[in-house]
Amino acid sequence: MYRKEALGPGDVGKINYTSSINDDAEIFKYVVAALIVHVNELEKNGVLSEDEAAKIREALRGIYRDGYRPGEGFEDVHEFVEAELIKRVGPLGGWVGLGRSRNDHVATAIRLRLKEYVLDLMNVLVEFRKTLLNKARETADQLIIGSTHKQPAQVTTLGHYLLALDELTSDLIDLLMASYRVIDKSPLGAGPLAGVLTRIDRRREADGLGFGGVVNNSIYATGSRFFMTQVLAIIVSYLVEVGRFINNVEMWLMPQLNYVITDPSHLATSSIMPHKRNPATLEVFRARIGEAIGHLMAVLAIERPVEFGYQLDLQEATRHAWAVMRIAIDGISILKDFIEGVKVNSERVGEDLAKYPVTTAEYAEKVSISEHRPFREVYNEVARVIRSDELGKVLLDPVQIINEKLNEGSPNPNQVREEAARRLRSIEQLSNWILNNKNKLLSILKLL
Amino acid sequence: MYRKEALGPGDVGKINYTSSINDDAEIFKYVVAALIVHVNELEKNGVLSEDEAAKIREALRGIYRDGYRPGEGFEDVHEFVEAELIKRVGPLGGWVGLGRSRNDHVATAIRLRLKEYVLDLMNVLVEFRKTLLNKARETADQLIIGSTHKQPAQVTTLGHYLLALDELTSDLIDLLMASYRVIDKSPLGAGPLAGVLTRIDRRREADGLGFGGVVNNSIYATGSRFFMTQVLAIIVSYLVEVGRFINNVEMWLMPQLNYVITDPSHLATSSIMPHKRNPATLEVFRARIGEAIGHLMAVLAIERPVEFGYQLDLQEATRHAWAVMRIAIDGISILKDFIEGVKVNSERVGEDLAKYPVTTAEYAEKVSISEHRPFREVYNEVARVIRSDELGKVLLDPVQIINEKLNEGSPNPNQVREEAARRLRSIEQLSNWILNNKNKLLSILKLL
Amino acid sequence: MYRKEALGPGDVGKINYTSSINDDAEIFKYVVAALIVHVNELEKNGVLSEDEAAKIREALRGIYRDGYRPGEGFEDVHEFVEAELIKRVGPLGGWVGLGRSRNDHVATAIRLRLKEYVLDLMNVLVEFRKTLLNKARETADQLIIGSTHKQPAQVTTLGHYLLALDELTSDLIDLLMASYRVIDKSPLGAGPLAGVLTRIDRRREADGLGFGGVVNNSIYATGSRFFMTQVLAIIVSYLVEVGRFINNVEMWLMPQLNYVITDPSHLATSSIMPHKRNPATLEVFRARIGEAIGHLMAVLAIERPVEFGYQLDLQEATRHAWAVMRIAIDGISILKDFIEGVKVNSERVGEDLAKYPVTTAEYAEKVSISEHRPFREVYNEVARVIRSDELGKVLLDPVQIINEKLNEGSPNPNQVREEAARRLRSIEQLSNWILNNKNKLLSILKLL
Amino acid sequence: MYRKEALGPGDVGKINYTSSINDDAEIFKYVVAALIVHVNELEKNGVLSEDEAAKIREALRGIYRDGYRPGEGFEDVHEFVEAELIKRVGPLGGWVGLGRSRNDHVATAIRLRLKEYVLDLMNVLVEFRKTLLNKARETADQLIIGSTHKQPAQVTTLGHYLLALDELTSDLIDLLMASYRVIDKSPLGAGPLAGVLTRIDRRREADGLGFGGVVNNSIYATGSRFFMTQVLAIIVSYLVEVGRFINNVEMWLMPQLNYVITDPSHLATSSIMPHKRNPATLEVFRARIGEAIGHLMAVLAIERPVEFGYQLDLQEATRHAWAVMRIAIDGISILKDFIEGVKVNSERVGEDLAKYPVTTAEYAEKVSISEHRPFREVYNEVARVIRSDELGKVLLDPVQIINEKLNEGSPNPNQVREEAARRLRSIEQLSNWILNNKNKLLSILKLL
Repeated sequence: MYRKEALGPGDVGKINYTSSINDDAEIFKYVVAALIVHVNELEKNGVLSEDEAAKIREALRGIYRDGYRPGEGFEDVHEFVEAELIKRVGPLGGWVGLGRSRNDHVATAIRLRLKEYVLDLMNVLVEFRKTLLNKARETADQLIIGSTHKQPAQVTTLGHYLLALDELTSDLIDLLMASYRVIDKSPLGAGPLAGVLTRIDRRREADGLGFGGVVNNSIYATGSRFFMTQVLAIIVSYLVEVGRFINNVEMWLMPQLNYVITDPSHLATSSIMPHKRNPATLEVFRARIGEAIGHLMAVLAIERPVEFGYQLDLQEATRHAWAVMRIAIDGISILKDFIEGVKVNSERVGEDLAKYPVTTAEYAEKVSISEHRPFREVYNEVARVIRSDELGKVLLDPVQIINEKLNEGSPNPNQVREEAARRLRSIEQLSNWILNNKNKLLSILKLL
Repeated sequence: MYRKEALGPGDVGKINYTSSINDDAEIFKYVVAALIVHVNELEKNGVLSEDEAAKIREALRGIYRDGYRPGEGFEDVHEFVEAELIKRVGPLGGWVGLGRSRNDHVATAIRLRLKEYVLDLMNVLVEFRKTLLNKARETADQLIIGSTHKQPAQVTTLGHYLLALDELTSDLIDLLMASYRVIDKSPLGAGPLAGVLTRIDRRREADGLGFGGVVNNSIYATGSRFFMTQVLAIIVSYLVEVGRFINNVEMWLMPQLNYVITDPSHLATSSIMPHKRNPATLEVFRARIGEAIGHLMAVLAIERPVEFGYQLDLQEATRHAWAVMRIAIDGISILKDFIEGVKVNSERVGEDLAKYPVTTAEYAEKVSISEHRPFREVYNEVARVIRSDELGKVLLDPVQIINEKLNEGSPNPNQVREEAARRLRSIEQLSNWILNNKNKLLSILKLL
Repeated sequence: MYRKEALGPGDVGKINYTSSINDDAEIFKYVVAALIVHVNELEKNGVLSEDEAAKIREALRGIYRDGYRPGEGFEDVHEFVEAELIKRVGPLGGWVGLGRSRNDHVATAIRLRLKEYVLDLMNVLVEFRKTLLNKARETADQLIIGSTHKQPAQVTTLGHYLLALDELTSDLIDLLMASYRVIDKSPLGAGPLAGVLTRIDRRREADGLGFGGVVNNSIYATGSRFFMTQVLAIIVSYLVEVGRFINNVEMWLMPQLNYVITDPSHLATSSIMPHKRNPATLEVFRARIGEAIGHLMAVLAIERPVEFGYQLDLQEATRHAWAVMRIAIDGISILKDFIEGVKVNSERVGEDLAKYPVTTAEYAEKVSISEHRPFREVYNEVARVIRSDELGKVLLDPVQIINEKLNEGSPNPNQVREEAARRLRSIEQLSNWILNNKNKLLSILKLL
Repeated sequence: MYRKEALGPGDVGKINYTSSINDDAEIFKYVVAALIVHVNELEKNGVLSEDEAAKIREALRGIYRDGYRPGEGFEDVHEFVEAELIKRVGPLGGWVGLGRSRNDHVATAIRLRLKEYVLDLMNVLVEFRKTLLNKARETADQLIIGSTHKQPAQVTTLGHYLLALDELTSDLIDLLMASYRVIDKSPLGAGPLAGVLTRIDRRREADGLGFGGVVNNSIYATGSRFFMTQVLAIIVSYLVEVGRFINNVEMWLMPQLNYVITDPSHLATSSIMPHKRNPATLEVFRARIGEAIGHLMAVLAIERPVEFGYQLDLQEATRHAWAVMRIAIDGISILKDFIEGVKVNSERVGEDLAKYPVTTAEYAEKVSISEHRPFREVYNEVARVIRSDELGKVLLDPVQIINEKLNEGSPNPNQVREEAARRLRSIEQLSNWILNNKNKLLSILKLL
C-alpha cells in the first residue's frame, strides 16, 4: 500500500521475504491499542473531529475483534491494519498515518508486549520461588552430597541447594525490576526518527497505554533496541545458571547415584532399551537454554551493521526476544513442577556418605582449632590418612556436621528453614509490585 | 507408546514440551524411507518373511502417502510412525523396533535431509555464480569507486567486485564438497549407542538410502552432531562475508553516492516519508545472516553439557540446522535476483571519480618507478600535494589506470572478462557433481 | 603445595596448563586484603592470638608491598600467597587455610575487582555523558541529515543525536546501579560449597571489605557466576548500541558526505594511498565491541557443562570479564575524546539538505492538517511529486522545521539545550553515588 | 611514519589504542619473509638494481635476526619494519612500499602463520589418533558402561569409545585438508584493494613463499577473512564434540562410578578438602573450548559491520584465530597425555554391570528373533519385568554380548582391534601429506 505511488506495485515474493506479518501476531493487540490512543490524541488536538475519531476507533476495535488474519502481500501488521481500516471506513482510515510512523509504532508495541512477557515471567519466577522455598523448608534436613568438580565435596541438604537457586532467582528479580523500568517508557509520537510536526502530547499517549514514562529522545525511541537486548541478556545469564542446576539434577538422577527420585512424568525411556529412565523434560529445558544463548547472539549480531536509527534489520531481531521469553517462562514452569515432585532418596545418600569422605575439611578444622595447630599442617596429615587404610578416622557424622554449621548461609537445617520462611514473607511485596504493573498494562484492554 | 510399560502413561503437557513432533515434518520422508530399507534388511536376514515384510512396507508407504498429520501426545515422528503402523497392520508393526533405535534412525534421517539441503544450496550457489560471472563480464568496464574503511580507495569496476564474491563462493563450494563427504555416511544400524545384536548389513542399508558410505563407529554414529555443526559453521562463515558485500551495496545505494541503481522491487519506502528508498530485501538478508550466527551459537551451546552419546538436548539442535540452510538458500536467491537487475550509475561514479583522489597510489607508483625514487619519498610528496590546493596534479585517468593494471586478479576489464569466462567453463563440472549426488539421493523416492 | 600429600608432586607442564597465576595479577590486591580481613576474624574469634594474627598480617602486607611476582608451578594466586606466607613466617602461615577455601576467596576477590571496574566504568560514563550533553548544547542547532536504512530520512541536529546516545547511557547507568547491588555482596566465609565449621561472622568480614551485604547461601556464593555474567551482558548490550552510533559516524565521515570533521588524531592513512583518511580509533573500538560479544559468549559457553558449584572451568571465565570491562572503559574514553573534537561541516550538510528531500513527511503533515485531508491521501500525492520533476514543491526550510517541532524529545534546538541542561544537573547526584561506593571500596587500602 | 605528511604527527595514546604491534609478534617472521620475496620481485622486474635489492634484503635479514622488539608509537609491524629499514639503509628502505600495501601484506602473513598453525595442529591430531588407536587396541575388551542421557545404556568398551573419538578426528582431518587448500593461496601483490600498477608476477611471489596458488581477485585477497573464519569454525565444531567426550571422562572419574583411573598429574585437590580429586586439566581444556566458541563469535561479530574490503576492524579479529589454534593444539596434547595414562577400573565396571540392566535391548532382540515375536511386544514384556523384582531374568553376560555383536562398528573386541589397526595404517599417508606441506612452508626460512 505504502509503496505503490513511490515505488510501484512490488513483487509478492520479495514482499513476503521482507514481511514481518507472521511474527506480528505477537503484537497485533498492542498495535491496535496504540492506534486507538493515537486517534484519541488527534481528536484531543483538534485534528480529528469527535465523529471522525469515533468512526476510526470503532473500526479499529472491529479489526481487533475479528482477529489477526492478514492475507499475503502486506509488509507488516501496520500496513495490514491501515489497509483494513481504509477498507472499512474509506479514506478516513488514512488519518492514522499522521503524526506517527511504523518506527515509533512498532517500538511501542514491542515494548508493551515485552512488558507483558516480563511480568508473566516475574509471576512464574515468584511461583517458582515459593516452590523452592516451601520445598527447602520441607527438605532442610534431607542430606545430599554436595559436589564441586562433579566430585563429592561436602555434606549438605536438598533444602540448602534450593535456597541457592532461590537466591539466584531473587537476584534476577531485583535486576528485572530495574530492567522493567528501562522498558516501561513510551516511544509513541517519536515519528520515524526526528519527531513529527503534528502536536502530540507524548506523556498523555504514554499514560493512555499504561506506560510509566516516555523515552525522551526521538532517535533513541525509534532506533535503539537496548530496551530489548538488556532484558534478554539478563534473562539468558540467569537461565545459564539454571541450566547448571539441571546438570546437578541430571547427575543426582544417575542410577549409580540415585540421590533423588522424580515423578515419572519427567522421564522418557528408549525405543529399544526398556530400562532407560531419561530425564527428558530437564534435558529439553537445558537445550532450550542453549537456544536462548543463540537467540541473544542473533540479536546482537543483527544489530552490528545497523546505524543508530531504524533499519529493517531490526525487525528480524524481535522474534528472538519472544523466543527467549517463552523459553524462560515454559522452562521455569517445567522445573517448578519437577521440584515440587522431587524426593530425596535418603537411603542411597546415606550409603554414599558412609563411603566417600566428605567431612575431611570439617575434621581438619576441628583438629586445627581444638589442638591449636595451623590448618595446613592438619590438612596434610588428613591427606595422608585418606591415602592410607584408615579413612574411617576422618569421617564425621554428617547430620551432626550440618547442625554444627552456624555461619550465615550454611546448610544448618534450622537456619535453612528460618531463611526460607523469611524469604517467603518478603515475596508478598514483590507480588504486589507485579500485580500493580500488570493492572496498569491490562488497562489497555479497556481501549479495545 | 514406548513409555507406557516402563514409566506409566505420561503427562500430555510434558510430552508436548519434550516432543519434536512439529519439527519432524522436515524429516518425515526420510524417516519412512529408512524404515523401509530396514524392513528390507530384516527380510534379507530372514528375520521377517517376505509376506510380513511386504505388509509392513505397504503400510509404511500408505503412511507416507497420507502425509504427516500426527496428533498430540507423540514424543516424535518415530513413535508416531510406529504407532500408526501398529494401528494399520496390528502387532506386526512392532517389528520395526528391532535392530534399530531412534538414535541411529534420527541421525540417518537428519543426514539425508541435510544432504538434500546442501545439494539445494549448492545448486543455488552454482546459479548465483553464473549470475555473478555473467554480470561480471557485462560490467567489466563499468567503474565503481572501490573503498576500504568505507572511504574511497581505488578505482575499480563492478565486474571486479563481482569476481571477488564469486571467488569467495567458489571457495565455499570447494569446502562444501569435503563437508558433504562427512555427511554422506549412514549411521543406520548403529543402534542406540553400542550397536545391536540383530545382524544388519550396514553397507547394504547405506546403499539402499543412497549414502556414499557408513559411519563406522556406533557411538560416533548416534551420539555426535559434528556432521551437522561443521557444515553450518562453514556456511555461516560464508554468509558473514556475503553480509559484508551487502554493506557495500547498501553504501552504493545511498542517495549521496547513488553508484548503483536497483530494481524497485528490492526497495521499500516509509509509511510517513514518501521519499524513502530503503533496500529492504538486502537488509532482511543481512539480518538473517545475523540470525544464522545465532543459530550456530545455539547448536554449539546446546552441545556443551551433553556427553558423547545421545541426549535429548541434541533433538533441539536440529531445527537450527534447517534454519541456517533456509537462510542461505533464500537469501542467496534474493541476492542473485538483486545482482541480475542492478545497474551502475556511471554518471554519478564519474562525478565522484573527478572529485576524490583515488589514483594517488598509482600516481606515486608511476613516479617512483619512472624517476627511480624510493616509493616512500614519492608517497610523502604526494601526501603534501593532497593537502595543498593542487590535488589535480595527482589525479590520473581512471579508465587508463584500470587498463594498465595487468597483474593477476586486477580490475583490468579484459582480464575480468577472461577470468569470468574461464570460471564459467569450470562450473559445468561442478553441476555434474551436484546432479549425480542429487540423483543418488532421489533414488530414495523409489522406495516410497 | 596443596596437592603434595594428596596427589604427589605434580607435573609442572600440567600445573602451568591449569594455572590461573598470570590472570590472577588482576585480583592480587583483593586476595591479600581478604586474607587480612579473614585473619582479623580468626583473631576476633579467638582462634588466633593477637600476636599470631599480627605476624601473619604483617607478612601479608609485606607480600603485597613486594608486588606480584609469582614463579612457576603455582596453581593460582591463593597457593602462591600461602606458600610465600609460610616461607616468611613458617608453619604459622598455614592458619590462613582455616575457615575459608579458594572457592569463596576467589569469588570475593573477583567481586571486589569487578566492583572497582564497574565504578571506573561508571566514572567514565559520567564523564562521557558530560561531554555528550555539553556538546549537545553546543551543537543543538547544527543540522545533520538524520538517516534510517542508511538513507536520508529527516533533518535533525548533531545535538539531537548526542542526546540519543546520552539517554542510552543514562539507561545503562540505571541498570548498572541495580547490577552493582547484585555484585556488592560478600561470599567470604562460604567455604568450598557448604560452609565451614570455624565460626566466622560473615557480615563483619563483609564490612571489613567494604561490601554492602553478604551473599547468603554458601552454594550460591561459591558456585555461581551470575554476579559476573549479568553485568557483562548488560554492558555488552550497551556497547553494541554504541557500535551502531559508530556506524553513523563512519558514514558521516565518508568524503562523499563529509558531514562531520574530526581531529586528525583519530584518523590513520594508508601505506600506499596517501589520500586515505581512515577513522582508525572508532573502527578499533567497534571491532572490540565485537570482541566483547565474543567474550560474553565465551563465559556463557564455559558455564554450560558446569554443575551448580565450583569447577575449574569457572576460573577460565574470569579473564573474559576483565576484557569486557577494559573494552568498555578504553573505548568509551576514546569515543568521548572523538566527540569532544568533532565538528559539523554545515556547508556540506546544507548542500545535501538542498538536494535530498528530507522534509516530505513534515510537508505532508502540514498539508494534511491545514487542508484537513487524510494523511495517506496527501502522502500519495507527495510520493507522485517526488517522482516528478517538481521535487522543489515538497521541500521545506529545514531550520524552520526543526524549530517547529515542539513535541517532547524533538530536535528543536531550544528543547535540546534545555533537556541537556536538565540532564547535566541530574548527573551530580550520580557522581555522588559513585564516589561513595568508590570510597567504600578504597577503604580496603587501609588494610594493606 | 605513514601518517606524518598526510595527517600530522598523531597522538601516541590513540596510536597505541589502534596499534596491532603486540599481536604482530605472531607474524613478524612471515612479514619479513614476504618483504624479501617482494624485493626479489622488484629486482626481477628491474625496478631495483641487484645492489639495491641486496642491501634491502640484507637489512631485512638483520632486522629479523635482531628479533621483534618494536618500541611504542608504531601502528603495526609493517610500519615498524619499514621504519627500521630506513633507519638502517636510509631512504632506500622506502622502496618496500612500492607495489604492495599493508592490506595484501598482512593477509599474506596471516595466511602463512595460519598454515603453520594448521599443520602443527594436524601433527598433533595425527599423534592423538595414534594414541587413540593404540589405546583402543589395548582396551578393546575392557568393558565400560556406555551411557546416553547420562544413564547406563549398553555395555561397550573403552576401546570402542576411543574409536568414536578417532573417527571424529579423522573426519576433522579430512575437512582440514580441504580447508588448508583455501588458506594456501597467496594474496601478495593484490595491493590495497584493486591491485597495483607495478608489474608483479604474483605466482612467482606465491612460489617464493611456498604457497600452493594465488588468490585471484585482489578485492577478495585483501578484504575477506573467509580463509580464517572457515578453518576456525571447523575446528571449533570439532572441539565442542571433544568437550563432550570430556563430559564422559568427568563422569567416569566420579568416585561413585570410578570406571576409569587417571594418572594423578591430571588431578588437583582442594585447599580445604584434602579428599578431593578434581580432573583439573580436562576441566580447563573443556573451559577453553568454551572460550574457543567465544573467539569464533568474536570474529564473526567483528566482521558484521565491515564492508567487503579492508577495514581496521579486521585487524582485531586475527588474535582470535591464534587463540583458537593454541586452544586446540594445547588441549589435544593434554587430552592425548590423559588417554595414554588412563586405565579402566574393571572391578568397578563389573560391579555396576551386575547392578544395572544394560543388556535389555539385546535380551529383547534375542527373544524377538528366536521366538519370532514382534519386537515391541517383547520390549513391553521386558519393561514389565524390569519394574518387577525379577530383573535378573533380563540380564545377559556382557562379555558375551559384545562378542556377539558383529555388525560394522560394534564394540566387538576383535573388530575394534582390526579397525584400529586398519586406521593406523591409513595414517601414514596423512603424515606424508603434512610433512610435505610443512617442508614447503619451512622453505621460507631459507629466505631469512
